[in-house]
Amino acid sequence: MGAAEQGGEGGEGEPWGEVSPDAARRLLVAAVDAFAERGYHATTTRDIASRAGMSPAALYIHYRTKEELLHRISGVGHEKALSVLSAAADGEGTAGTRLAEAVRSFVRWHAAHHTTARVVQYELDALGPEHRAEIMALRRRTDAVVRGVIEEGVRSGEFDVADAAGTTLAVLSLCIDVARWFNVAGRRTPDEVGELYAGLVLRMVGATAAP
Amino acid sequence: MGAAEQGGEGGEGEPWGEVSPDAARRLLVAAVDAFAERGYHATTTRDIASRAGMSPAALYIHYRTKEELLHRISGVGHEKALSVLSAAADGEGTAGTRLAEAVRSFVRWHAAHHTTARVVQYELDALGPEHRAEIMALRRRTDAVVRGVIEEGVRSGEFDVADAAGTTLAVLSLCIDVARWFNVAGRRTPDEVGELYAGLVLRMVGATAAP
Repeated sequence: MGAAEQGGEGGEGEPWGEVSPDAARRLLVAAVDAFAERGYHATTTRDIASRAGMSPAALYIHYRTKEELLHRISGVGHEKALSVLSAAADGEGTAGTRLAEAVRSFVRWHAAHHTTARVVQYELDALGPEHRAEIMALRRRTDAVVRGVIEEGVRSGEFDVADAAGTTLAVLSLCIDVARWFNVAGRRTPDEVGELYAGLVLRMVGATAAP
Repeated sequence: MGAAEQGGEGGEGEPWGEVSPDAARRLLVAAVDAFAERGYHATTTRDIASRAGMSPAALYIHYRTKEELLHRISGVGHEKALSVLSAAADGEGTAGTRLAEAVRSFVRWHAAHHTTARVVQYELDALGPEHRAEIMALRRRTDAVVRGVIEEGVRSGEFDVADAAGTTLAVLSLCIDVARWFNVAGRRTPDEVGELYAGLVLRMVGATAAP
């Protein structure tokens, strides 16, 4: 089942908008679809070029290897998700308000870009050591954003959390796993899942006041 | 990275104990490792037979197709996970006590069998329509177990839950995603993750009394 069948991830808010030139962007979109459908190891650069309507030689102008495509997908995916999360966490209001908004944003991102997020999460082991280390650094930054808001709420007495690191892990895991089960044909919209999860996360941190 | 590198899932508590004869069991273990390492589509029955120290002809005595192997892995995996979850949910005590124990058991299973659980979750789309429908029925039963305990706690006034279906989805998602991030070399043992998550889930359902 490719991204197209799952409802597509192109159009508004698609994460590849900044990738240029157009051919490089089309190849990323084609690679996400191919990796999602058949897995990284079963996909060839020839498959990807063909999906993008290009020759293998045209692909090599933009990406030297299949791993370079995965690295680019993973990098852009992690950066975009981190950026929506940070914007929410750095917003106005109490720690509760900002944690709730961070969860809403992160959930919406993983629901809307579930095909990309699945590839990014499931194919992490296929990255080379340096690229993997780079992605791990982005993940630590993502973790630090959520942990920062949680610790702020604990200091201000707004939250009651015994294990900030463990709670951060659980909050991020809950949001990321939306990419696994989310179905565009399902009962809940990305906004509805975000709202549900924001409420559940405020309970997880023992928030005293409703934001 | 195969199961062996991730710490192995053989030995005590491994889910294939009931599969016989021995050759059929060895082939399942080999298939889990191969699918985890390279993905379902990049794995051939020849690869699997070779990992199990058998000829392709010997594999076909037990499994007619690669899909049959995946179906067996998925079936046994889902049944085992459902069985540990049900045993906990049907135990003694209040809804809170049983929900906490269900979460502990389900988390421990997904941490201990993370390689199997990843294959089962990530390769669901590779199952044929009938096999997929069979697995979906097992997932609905899993969902019903958790939802049953949550609704019982709501009826008795022990829990405060606005959306039982949504909360059930979140609780199961949180536990299942342990398989994605759990690392045997990491800081937390399966028991520690189970304990942390049981406490977080009791907060999610607004449990009034500590179990």
